[in-house]
Amino acid sequence: VVSDVVSDVNPSTTPGELATLCELSIEAERELVSIGREGRSRMLFSMADALEHRRTDLVEISAAETALTPQRLDGELTRTAYQLRQFAEVVDEGSYLEATIDHASSTPMGPRPDLRRILRPLGPVAVFGASNFPFAFSVPGGDSASALAAGCPVLAKVHEAHPATSIMAREALMEGARTAGVRSEVVSLVFGQDAGVALVEHPSIQAVGFTGSPGVGRLLHERASQRPTPIPFYGELGALNAVVVCEHAAKSRGRDIGRDLVGSFTLGVGQFCTKPGLVLLPSRTAGDEVIATMRDAVHSAAAGAMLSARTAQNFALRSTDLRDHEGVQVLAEGMPPTSSDGWWARPLLLHATPEVLEGIVTEECFGPVLVVVNYDSPRQLLESLDRLGAALTATVHADPPDEVLGRMLLDQLTGKVGRIVWNGYPTGVAVTWAMHHGGPYPASIGSIHTSVGQTAIRRWMRPISYQDVPSALLPAELHDTPRRKDMIVRRVDGILIAPTQG
Amino acid sequence: VVSDVVSDVNPSTTPGELATLCELSIEAERELVSIGREGRSRMLFSMADALEHRRTDLVEISAAETALTPQRLDGELTRTAYQLRQFAEVVDEGSYLEATIDHASSTPMGPRPDLRRILRPLGPVAVFGASNFPFAFSVPGGDSASALAAGCPVLAKVHEAHPATSIMAREALMEGARTAGVRSEVVSLVFGQDAGVALVEHPSIQAVGFTGSPGVGRLLHERASQRPTPIPFYGELGALNAVVVCEHAAKSRGRDIGRDLVGSFTLGVGQFCTKPGLVLLPSRTAGDEVIATMRDAVHSAAAGAMLSARTAQNFALRSTDLRDHEGVQVLAEGMPPTSSDGWWARPLLLHATPEVLEGIVTEECFGPVLVVVNYDSPRQLLESLDRLGAALTATVHADPPDEVLGRMLLDQLTGKVGRIVWNGYPTGVAVTWAMHHGGPYPASIGSIHTSVGQTAIRRWMRPISYQDVPSALLPAELHDTPRRKDMIVRRVDGILIAPTQG
Repeated sequence: VVSDVVSDVNPSTTPGELATLCELSIEAERELVSIGREGRSRMLFSMADALEHRRTDLVEISAAETALTPQRLDGELTRTAYQLRQFAEVVDEGSYLEATIDHASSTPMGPRPDLRRILRPLGPVAVFGASNFPFAFSVPGGDSASALAAGCPVLAKVHEAHPATSIMAREALMEGARTAGVRSEVVSLVFGQDAGVALVEHPSIQAVGFTGSPGVGRLLHERASQRPTPIPFYGELGALNAVVVCEHAAKSRGRDIGRDLVGSFTLGVGQFCTKPGLVLLPSRTAGDEVIATMRDAVHSAAAGAMLSARTAQNFALRSTDLRDHEGVQVLAEGMPPTSSDGWWARPLLLHATPEVLEGIVTEECFGPVLVVVNYDSPRQLLESLDRLGAALTATVHADPPDEVLGRMLLDQLTGKVGRIVWNGYPTGVAVTWAMHHGGPYPASIGSIHTSVGQTAIRRWMRPISYQDVPSALLPAELHDTPRRKDMIVRRVDGILIAPTQG
Repeated sequence: VVSDVVSDVNPSTTPGELATLCELSIEAERELVSIGREGRSRMLFSMADALEHRRTDLVEISAAETALTPQRLDGELTRTAYQLRQFAEVVDEGSYLEATIDHASSTPMGPRPDLRRILRPLGPVAVFGASNFPFAFSVPGGDSASALAAGCPVLAKVHEAHPATSIMAREALMEGARTAGVRSEVVSLVFGQDAGVALVEHPSIQAVGFTGSPGVGRLLHERASQRPTPIPFYGELGALNAVVVCEHAAKSRGRDIGRDLVGSFTLGVGQFCTKPGLVLLPSRTAGDEVIATMRDAVHSAAAGAMLSARTAQNFALRSTDLRDHEGVQVLAEGMPPTSSDGWWARPLLLHATPEVLEGIVTEECFGPVLVVVNYDSPRQLLESLDRLGAALTATVHADPPDEVLGRMLLDQLTGKVGRIVWNGYPTGVAVTWAMHHGGPYPASIGSIHTSVGQTAIRRWMRPISYQDVPSALLPAELHDTPRRKDMIVRRVDGILIAPTQG
């Protein structure tokens, strides 16, 4: 209902409006550069405060708009504010600039001029948020936080699943910016699918961050590549996220694994890009116990409301195709919905034979479904894994006696995924330096960069070198003797040096 | 002549042969990973030695094949060996791995698992070398050196301008690899244009490094993006590389600037991607003196042999279009060639009015041509610069009294180029940490990375995170207490830490 109201109020952005927004973002780029690291850090902290200040309203409107619970949305808002503050700290710390000084010297190749390198913002960027995270991966989310930290204004394509939330979140970000003294349009909103495509193709846009389906991601990536001026496209598309349970782990803690795996694949009604979609279990007793536990857990698992009518329809179609697939049978289904209206999905546990590991059986199905596949031997296990595509994550449950197999699994999985989880579950993506959220295609496009964690800032910057440029004209961080506040980690004459402490 | 012989001996690589080469490169990937940093460093040093060991033969065959002088080729070989050794040192130093450890802890977002991140090689990569650098930007060049350092086998598309050189250079690299104990096909050659396209589209290839023309670069980039599995494409395409001479600099050292600028645009018969293609000079006396000096220098400049018949034909066509262009007139032309055969080009100095700064007048013309444009005021200068596209470099000649204008120029150029040269000339690209060789399109595709300098290694790697993975299974560099040889710069719990010295 809210969504209908909003789409009346906010029709698609027209080409003329888009042109104006892009012009304003060029002004914003100038301001974001001119306020420097100190100013951008202050702005990000202030944006986080402003989001939390409007927490009640934001949670209320997003709960009305999305079918996500207020509790979940409240936690997501906390995470979103946390991300903004983290990127403020990244800006303060400064190593992300990769500041490098090579003094003039003689080399085996002859005399070398003075060269100084630093990263600078690309310019205005487009951000396409996801339906499943109206805050953390949408208008105020990680792509926006990292881009603003880099100094890039954000033009966010509003997801049709949460327009009112997007408008209010953008207002909060702009309030935060103004409180920090920033006057320009550092975050703008674009409405409508056609306007989204036009945004990717607009000459002012210098990069695209996208979280969503492979179909839309591929389309926008091609548009970004075919522009007169091609630009980087970073797409986080999702994955199957296989889980392997080794023999001894299954024997020693099969019940725990079964229970927690059901918790993981049904969490958030299975609508996380890190949802485990397939589990490989040993045949015979050890695996059977995991299956029995999972069946029990699924039987008593409640149906959940999905993000939108379309998401629920897609899940119904995809899961029906899966259960009707040759070699696939239903092991268990969750409780029916308590009401007939709404966007319901019942948890679904399927079994597939190793022979049918191809096509839709190995593709992500967005929603609460998990496919069980048995293996008779380590060899068959590795062969089955070979038939799976790349993914954001892979998970291994292994006990100490499983070590030999564990090592083989690690070797094989390392080539295919962005994160390997040991004796855990892939849902839950910590926002930290050592996180990598990405993987070879189809997990991501632009897979050499992450969309979560501090290093995500690198996506929005390009290097520039200054050759023999006078000190007075250089960025402060490249001076030979910077002032205290401009002291950051730098590489000087080849050696990485931390700033003097104290 | 050599080229004809070779193309008889080496017909295009067939699809079947390409499939075999790709299979062998998968084996090579395994070996490059298994020998570790120590093994790869040893291999790169040994490759550099092997190239130098065959210096006489390599210089001879490339001189016969390319019309470059033995002296120039000898220097280029030295640079190529230097690059290989530099990347060996990058591997030894280890900070390129971006090793990161976040110990398990409680955070404002709840408990966080142990997470450890490191970069790993993408897998086999395709390298397309350039006609103008048969060593330094071809089979044994910077793309290959950085990819091998990362642990990626190289499939090099042989440039038709120097096939025999490519074959011998690859033999030297393989000799070096074998001396270091490496047995697999870490560098393979692919012949023919169709095979080159097939290489970019082959599922085993994980990234492409390209140096060459915008036309071919765009085509291959689209192929790389439209694959079922899109891969990163890094293209270094060339640029106009404008030079600005400020009023006071022109007055105080106009003759020097004029002389050196002619030296820079005619160096290597104007066939460097950093060749200055356009100079903006003050109107009136100050600029006139620069022009007079340049005219004299060009009049007495010798014609030079270009890289190939095709290059010479292209230059003849492009430079004729330029001199016939509305608003363009010839200021000076170099000496006619001393012989009628050969791929000759005469240095050419043109003048254009600011009004015609668009289309071909603002595009790179590969060869010894420089366009002079005058400006009446700082305002007209900045407007003229506005009409130029992005570039690899921009150069400013400014004396202390030019400081106000210099600062405006720096601000404007920063947004458009990869390197700003002060009181110097853009030709000459130092191979060092602070070098950036790249720029916004059309200078490069994939402009957030460089193709020269140590940081070029980042193009061939993607991150992986390990969550709660047992220490025994982790890469050595991610152990809590690594052995001496595995101690590298790491980020631990958010803090960048250099290894303990001594």
